[in-house]
Amino acid sequence: MNDHITSEDDFLALIAEKFPNNHPSLILGRGDDCAEIACSSQMAVSTDIFLEDVHFRRTYFSPFEIGYKALAVNISDIASAGARPLGISIGLVTPTPFPREEAVSILDGMAQAAKEHDIVLTGGDLSRGDKLSFCVTIYGSPTIPEGKKPRFLRRGPVAPGDKLFVCGHLGLARAGLMLLEEHGRNAARDFPVACAAHLMPVPLVHVGMLLASIPGCRVMDISDGLARDLPRLLKAYGTDYGANISLPETALHPEVIAYSQKSGHSPAHFAFLGGEDYALLGACPADVAECLDMTMQSLPENVPFFFMGTVTEQPGIICNAERFADVGFDHFSQRSKT
Amino acid sequence: MNDHITSEDDFLALIAEKFPNNHPSLILGRGDDCAEIACSSQMAVSTDIFLEDVHFRRTYFSPFEIGYKALAVNISDIASAGARPLGISIGLVTPTPFPREEAVSILDGMAQAAKEHDIVLTGGDLSRGDKLSFCVTIYGSPTIPEGKKPRFLRRGPVAPGDKLFVCGHLGLARAGLMLLEEHGRNAARDFPVACAAHLMPVPLVHVGMLLASIPGCRVMDISDGLARDLPRLLKAYGTDYGANISLPETALHPEVIAYSQKSGHSPAHFAFLGGEDYALLGACPADVAECLDMTMQSLPENVPFFFMGTVTEQPGIICNAERFADVGFDHFSQRSKT
Repeated sequence: MNDHITSEDDFLALIAEKFPNNHPSLILGRGDDCAEIACSSQMAVSTDIFLEDVHFRRTYFSPFEIGYKALAVNISDIASAGARPLGISIGLVTPTPFPREEAVSILDGMAQAAKEHDIVLTGGDLSRGDKLSFCVTIYGSPTIPEGKKPRFLRRGPVAPGDKLFVCGHLGLARAGLMLLEEHGRNAARDFPVACAAHLMPVPLVHVGMLLASIPGCRVMDISDGLARDLPRLLKAYGTDYGANISLPETALHPEVIAYSQKSGHSPAHFAFLGGEDYALLGACPADVAECLDMTMQSLPENVPFFFMGTVTEQPGIICNAERFADVGFDHFSQRSKT
Repeated sequence: MNDHITSEDDFLALIAEKFPNNHPSLILGRGDDCAEIACSSQMAVSTDIFLEDVHFRRTYFSPFEIGYKALAVNISDIASAGARPLGISIGLVTPTPFPREEAVSILDGMAQAAKEHDIVLTGGDLSRGDKLSFCVTIYGSPTIPEGKKPRFLRRGPVAPGDKLFVCGHLGLARAGLMLLEEHGRNAARDFPVACAAHLMPVPLVHVGMLLASIPGCRVMDISDGLARDLPRLLKAYGTDYGANISLPETALHPEVIAYSQKSGHSPAHFAFLGGEDYALLGACPADVAECLDMTMQSLPENVPFFFMGTVTEQPGIICNAERFADVGFDHFSQRSKT
């Protein structure tokens, strides 16, 4: 019996077991120098890095969760474009020797995320390295028929008076991260939803597609926290607006409130800082807000949707009548929160 | 003055300086969750990892060369598909703090490779990490008009009697690698071409496009050495053929011969093991060989093209009348050569 991956071919054979090499959008699958994909006239493309000890820990993530999240964070970008995910290409680095059982579980997690969204693995590259790391490039096609605009959702431009909305939980994944860092998997006993939000975020592909059907919607996903991502929405495409928002406790998950109070933070401020929410943040013209609200009634109960405020002419962010600073996660900055 | 990259935005601003954010194939450039690209009905896609201390050393690569090669090895896959490279999406990991001057030179090298092939940077992701690493996904469009086949070059299937050819140098980059590992940059004094072949390989995009115009050509790039890649060509698409090839010294670069003799290897065997040649290896039906030969006369002198033998019904590889073993580079295997 082999306990470790013995060769590149061995690894490729495992991948072949877990990932079908055919798909309606695939003309030529894995095995050649390039894959050949069937494209619509426009495609949305995005790349994400998912790196051990930067984005995840092998100490408290299961291998399955690592594989799942490596794809989920990337799929979330396609969700925020209102696109239908089609395929991914992956650069996968593992330490050597790498346990076979761990490799199998990672691939199972990746395959699960791919299967949930009917995504084909078109190819990639394998290498040994010091740390486990994933670099995933995803592409997707528009869900809106050709000839109609917009074909993909974009971040902007927004306009003063636009209604700001969020779909998903704010701060929940950050609470999970902090709890897992402090207590490991034991944290899941008292904070199961927060831990799950960090370990296995669910990309809101279906929501993105619904939003793409609403005229004038602007959308992005919240990967670095509302504090950092809301200014990006307000400044996308050359605008420089502000926002007046409110985050009442009714808009927050009970575990966010419980954790904030326990750790001495204001729940709204904690949720505002967020990080890795993978919620969708958007703006829409006031006159479509009612239609949007009705459309979102169809979402399942565990996917909250709420209007949180308005785009203002005046730059800066007012949250719960208080001016909040523009800080969030930055890999290269000294002021990073992790 | 800032000596180091101070933030993600700082890094993004540098990237914006070096890479234009517009291109005929780009509908929406960098800055949103996804880029939007204009596609032909079929696209070729490939991903490569380029990792410090696995694929390159910061001790003897200049930052410019690192950036250049990170893209070149990826562009080579598009060359082997006979495609026109259009865009890339990059996952870039750097240690922190990261010297600004080094970042600038790396980006200059990447921008140079992109410019040479009219490739647009559509987006990517940045992260800190222990080692400098690149994961590049490239896509390209067919150069053959729609409706004609084949639209992209593939590895196979080959057939017995097909003529095997190589465009580029065998073993030259491997000699460069070994010399640089042993002597650092001093190696370039006596072996300038071998060192350059390892440090800044030139992807043969123009050759791939020419090959795509020859009916029945099968092509792949030699990234792991002929010893490992020729069997892949012979076994692609379910075949299991062999090859009878000859690698006379006239087909090898003088620096390969000089280095082999110096280090006690047979030049043919050394070239056969190769590694990182980024030459194009192909097969064509015998009746198009003459036409192919004529077409290749147009290549510049420093890009050698030669027929090296024939696909045989009998599996296994005979080189210079001697049976050569199927070994080459494998990241996960104990029998890897580095």
